[in-house]
Amino acid sequence: MIVAMLETANEEQIQGVLERMVEIGFNVHRTTGAVQTILAGVGTPGNFDHKDFELLAGVAHVHRISSPYKLAGRGFRPEGTVVRFKNGVSVGGNEVVVMAGPCSVEGREQIALAAAQVKAAGAKFLRGGAFKPRSSPYSFQGMGLEGLKLLRDVGDASGLLIISEVMEISQIELMLPYVDCFQVGARNMQNFNLLRELGLVRKPVLLKRGIAATIEEVLLSAEYILSGGNYDLMLCERGIRTFETYTRNTMDISAIPVIKKLSHLPILGDPSHGVGLRDKVPAMARAAVAAGADGLLIEVHPNPDKAFSDGAQSLFPEQFEELMASLRLISSAVGRKIA
Amino acid sequence: MIVAMLETANEEQIQGVLERMVEIGFNVHRTTGAVQTILAGVGTPGNFDHKDFELLAGVAHVHRISSPYKLAGRGFRPEGTVVRFKNGVSVGGNEVVVMAGPCSVEGREQIALAAAQVKAAGAKFLRGGAFKPRSSPYSFQGMGLEGLKLLRDVGDASGLLIISEVMEISQIELMLPYVDCFQVGARNMQNFNLLRELGLVRKPVLLKRGIAATIEEVLLSAEYILSGGNYDLMLCERGIRTFETYTRNTMDISAIPVIKKLSHLPILGDPSHGVGLRDKVPAMARAAVAAGADGLLIEVHPNPDKAFSDGAQSLFPEQFEELMASLRLISSAVGRKIA
Amino acid sequence: MIVAMLETANEEQIQGVLERMVEIGFNVHRTTGAVQTILAGVGTPGNFDHKDFELLAGVAHVHRISSPYKLAGRGFRPEGTVVRFKNGVSVGGNEVVVMAGPCSVEGREQIALAAAQVKAAGAKFLRGGAFKPRSSPYSFQGMGLEGLKLLRDVGDASGLLIISEVMEISQIELMLPYVDCFQVGARNMQNFNLLRELGLVRKPVLLKRGIAATIEEVLLSAEYILSGGNYDLMLCERGIRTFETYTRNTMDISAIPVIKKLSHLPILGDPSHGVGLRDKVPAMARAAVAAGADGLLIEVHPNPDKAFSDGAQSLFPEQFEELMASLRLISSAVGRKIA
Amino acid sequence: MIVAMLETANEEQIQGVLERMVEIGFNVHRTTGAVQTILAGVGTPGNFDHKDFELLAGVAHVHRISSPYKLAGRGFRPEGTVVRFKNGVSVGGNEVVVMAGPCSVEGREQIALAAAQVKAAGAKFLRGGAFKPRSSPYSFQGMGLEGLKLLRDVGDASGLLIISEVMEISQIELMLPYVDCFQVGARNMQNFNLLRELGLVRKPVLLKRGIAATIEEVLLSAEYILSGGNYDLMLCERGIRTFETYTRNTMDISAIPVIKKLSHLPILGDPSHGVGLRDKVPAMARAAVAAGADGLLIEVHPNPDKAFSDGAQSLFPEQFEELMASLRLISSAVGRKIA
Repeated sequence: MIVAMLETANEEQIQGVLERMVEIGFNVHRTTGAVQTILAGVGTPGNFDHKDFELLAGVAHVHRISSPYKLAGRGFRPEGTVVRFKNGVSVGGNEVVVMAGPCSVEGREQIALAAAQVKAAGAKFLRGGAFKPRSSPYSFQGMGLEGLKLLRDVGDASGLLIISEVMEISQIELMLPYVDCFQVGARNMQNFNLLRELGLVRKPVLLKRGIAATIEEVLLSAEYILSGGNYDLMLCERGIRTFETYTRNTMDISAIPVIKKLSHLPILGDPSHGVGLRDKVPAMARAAVAAGADGLLIEVHPNPDKAFSDGAQSLFPEQFEELMASLRLISSAVGRKIA
Repeated sequence: MIVAMLETANEEQIQGVLERMVEIGFNVHRTTGAVQTILAGVGTPGNFDHKDFELLAGVAHVHRISSPYKLAGRGFRPEGTVVRFKNGVSVGGNEVVVMAGPCSVEGREQIALAAAQVKAAGAKFLRGGAFKPRSSPYSFQGMGLEGLKLLRDVGDASGLLIISEVMEISQIELMLPYVDCFQVGARNMQNFNLLRELGLVRKPVLLKRGIAATIEEVLLSAEYILSGGNYDLMLCERGIRTFETYTRNTMDISAIPVIKKLSHLPILGDPSHGVGLRDKVPAMARAAVAAGADGLLIEVHPNPDKAFSDGAQSLFPEQFEELMASLRLISSAVGRKIA
Repeated sequence: MIVAMLETANEEQIQGVLERMVEIGFNVHRTTGAVQTILAGVGTPGNFDHKDFELLAGVAHVHRISSPYKLAGRGFRPEGTVVRFKNGVSVGGNEVVVMAGPCSVEGREQIALAAAQVKAAGAKFLRGGAFKPRSSPYSFQGMGLEGLKLLRDVGDASGLLIISEVMEISQIELMLPYVDCFQVGARNMQNFNLLRELGLVRKPVLLKRGIAATIEEVLLSAEYILSGGNYDLMLCERGIRTFETYTRNTMDISAIPVIKKLSHLPILGDPSHGVGLRDKVPAMARAAVAAGADGLLIEVHPNPDKAFSDGAQSLFPEQFEELMASLRLISSAVGRKIA
Repeated sequence: MIVAMLETANEEQIQGVLERMVEIGFNVHRTTGAVQTILAGVGTPGNFDHKDFELLAGVAHVHRISSPYKLAGRGFRPEGTVVRFKNGVSVGGNEVVVMAGPCSVEGREQIALAAAQVKAAGAKFLRGGAFKPRSSPYSFQGMGLEGLKLLRDVGDASGLLIISEVMEISQIELMLPYVDCFQVGARNMQNFNLLRELGLVRKPVLLKRGIAATIEEVLLSAEYILSGGNYDLMLCERGIRTFETYTRNTMDISAIPVIKKLSHLPILGDPSHGVGLRDKVPAMARAAVAAGADGLLIEVHPNPDKAFSDGAQSLFPEQFEELMASLRLISSAVGRKIA
């Protein structure tokens, strides 16, 4: 921590701050300049809030030096994390992995058809919600356990891995037999109790960025899962909330290269939620891969016009097939591949 | 729902949209203008997403007409809701009610001292966290059940009501005997399972606005609680996330008069989280009351410099006392009172 | 400037950064910690961008220490600036000064009536636009010079001071004889050429915060005017752009106490543009004064329903009168007064 | 315009609104539903603000139907605009055109070297600022006219077209002989007087999106230029301001497909300002082209470490060369080409 004192700070104030830093456990180096005094705290004391120092008498600014996350930082695993699944699928390596399927499981016929379609086009995962977080209590809330079973059946039959959203702690046990990967939705990115429990599970997790979360906060949330011992973690950019309302969210494509630099964790993109409008999804999927994404989550529905939820952002199967073809070209343009 | 067709839409496209509206359950009135055709859907069909219509061929814009929340709307109870507590305290009436105390319960001595101080200054509620959502897994996580017991003891002894944050469903049962009001934090504003459970409880709830939540989303979340039958609900503005980083959040004071107009629910302000800097808290508390807030949540700590959490935004007891004096004057300037 | 090196930085990288700091003119103090090395640059070299250092090999973070504005900082004039006008009016002292009137000057009758109405209610300034920045080229663009003459006539007759917006350099000369204060609109807050010219004028300026401007940027823009020698400067908060669209902008009331602390310049509030909805304007005007604003800009129109622009956010004269009565009470609750 | 009345609106209120709509020039169709009444105004009355209707008694919501821009809309020229320059260069066609060069012209040697480097790598335009808008009055402000002459000389010698920023009306005349395209910076996107003058010029203009501008506002600003008769207009996405501060701005890649749909104007991307960090620029440049951009503006400097401005976001010449190679692959993956 660095504390820059005000130009007008007197010696008593400087000593006050210095003593408080020592009290907390810092080794303090003082730099007395012609204009102002700077106190550099070296060391890593545990539980304190650097903002407390901003209010001490004579203080101009306080700067945190060490990053607040450790296990999620690139330095922890400079070579990058590769999350391995069955069927020889891995995320974070050379292949760009596509996870596709409908927003919600609506019934056997729908999900089986969706699975066949996305598999044929080259997806490795089938996505589909069994428990749905909906902003209105009057909307469709998901098929629950029955939906999970359908996903598993269809996944096994088609050779697709299954990813589905977990909304609360009590669902973890329930979901374990049915999914290959837990998805934590944007609204739960800071549900710390849930994250902590997922840190104890031995199954991969995909953590979506919250719509108002900074990249640093995403990495702090990742830290909750990693610090429980679960290192099979992937992150996912799916749009942030900005003043622009034409698109549902503003997909922050730059988060992809930024997270690649700051962290060793794979980073995927979700263009369906990122823009929320079907006809913009292909362009954003291509942009995410061009920017270096390790994979994509894409909503595809056999019949979007009849979807129980998110129909407006789900691709038609033929659109998805066409998109996959162009993603193959883009992947190879950036030195990656889609099987 | 109103569907405005493109100027270039042909008759076949217009018929396609019209038929889909009828299929869903709308009564459709067609207006054929010189420039464009407008289809007005009358009625309230249940489960559909008006965004689906934006993608139909020939459509220019779609406008939702009826508001997506019903029980939370002002029209449901035009006279406004008054939430009644024991000790003759009520929120939503003429009195501006202040809830104050430390961010976290840290021990008996600390919370007892805090209670005595805020009571003396005029607070009606003691606030204090027993379960703490912290963005870093390495920060203090709260005293849990022991903290709740301390709150209850100290509340009973001092004649203060108790409000504390509930973070997940399993805590509801646990907390019931100890609190007079459940607080739902900003991060849980869209934890719909938790909201649904709180709708079944017969104890008041204070629901905080999420940092990225629109006012409409706050009211939709309120709808989850109200639709369960729990009408003892209060809302709270505590800052939204914007590009301005000097303050922790940007406290949206205008949400107070807006929610007053749109809803019958009482609306409070939380200036401590709203700005996150102790020396700006009094100005924002005064602004909230001047704008019509029904109450305030304020962090006060007997010794902020030693607080386990949020010390930098907690008031010193003497600051709080001084603030209460000026809030009395402001309350009376807007035709309200603080006892 | 503080440069924190990566934990993995080697000695060569550290020397590289150190040499570059010395080259630029810093006196460098090096702190070698167990974990990382910190380089503190003391001194105030002129023209360099601290962000350049972020990209040097081995660098973790760079922190600017000295604030980039000097003349606008509170330290330059700790007692605060009071801008004095004729008629004994001054802004920044004990009095809360209200500037009111229509968005645009529309004709003699309209502006004379507005003047009489706002004067009667206690305003000290008549505001009104002669040159109008409109987002659509098809909207009313203002009366120009003729409007300025009307303002001056009506101001002299009623004893009100005149404030009007200047949109470009060529208008400065033109406006000089007619206005008592130049207003720089939000869209021009970073029109640096215009600001530079206004720094050379010897007439007060009111500078509005841009809708996407941080507080630091407002103060940097103020620096342009101050550095030209014009110290008669006032700032004005009028709403920032956020994700919330219910209100036209989100009025950042917290900017008022923040600017009071960081700068010596008076700070006013403009609730009309801040919320953009007439029925929310009184609440926000009260909030601004309660938070410590030195004055207010408020749109009032003799007949808002017929206004050429901004009718929806203009108060009816009787609303304004009522508002002024409550502002008097709030002012006195915070130790100020409205004459 | 559609006006939805409140469920509680009485007949008198409905008549009041209806009469006001007729007065303004609308043809009104009334739909009386079981729940509420809807008034559809057909026609295109000129100068009125639809927000005025929100405040009339009994009104629930008001929806604008016709888009506020006409000449900028896709419907005006469905086939898309191609802006033609000398040397056979055109923007908006099949080729992705790259404009590259330093932030500022700093001297003959620097700009000549930059020109040679970007030309060799495949750029068609040399960019470079002669007049610089800087947020601090203490920063380098550009070489002015001398810089323009250098640009022209170097452009002619190397066969590059010249684009440079115009900051105010008085510079238009001055710049005309030296540039092939005027660039309007983000801060001037709503400098309507400047836009109007550029509408009268017969030379292409590139208009950058402001950091707080919605896409609709960009198109309204475009309308100012188009309505003056200058149809040689290109738009440019260069980052919007959001809560995320890791990057200088958040480059809104989705604006590219959105503008492609809404407007006929070519849309370029500026990844240098979009992210503001050199090592993220290539990823964002690739993303922009993958999303369908018609061209790119990229800052390249012969020696970024010594640049007078924006060094931290300027590419090294060898980085630019490498980037151009990968952009060629991406362009062909999306059916475009870079010569």
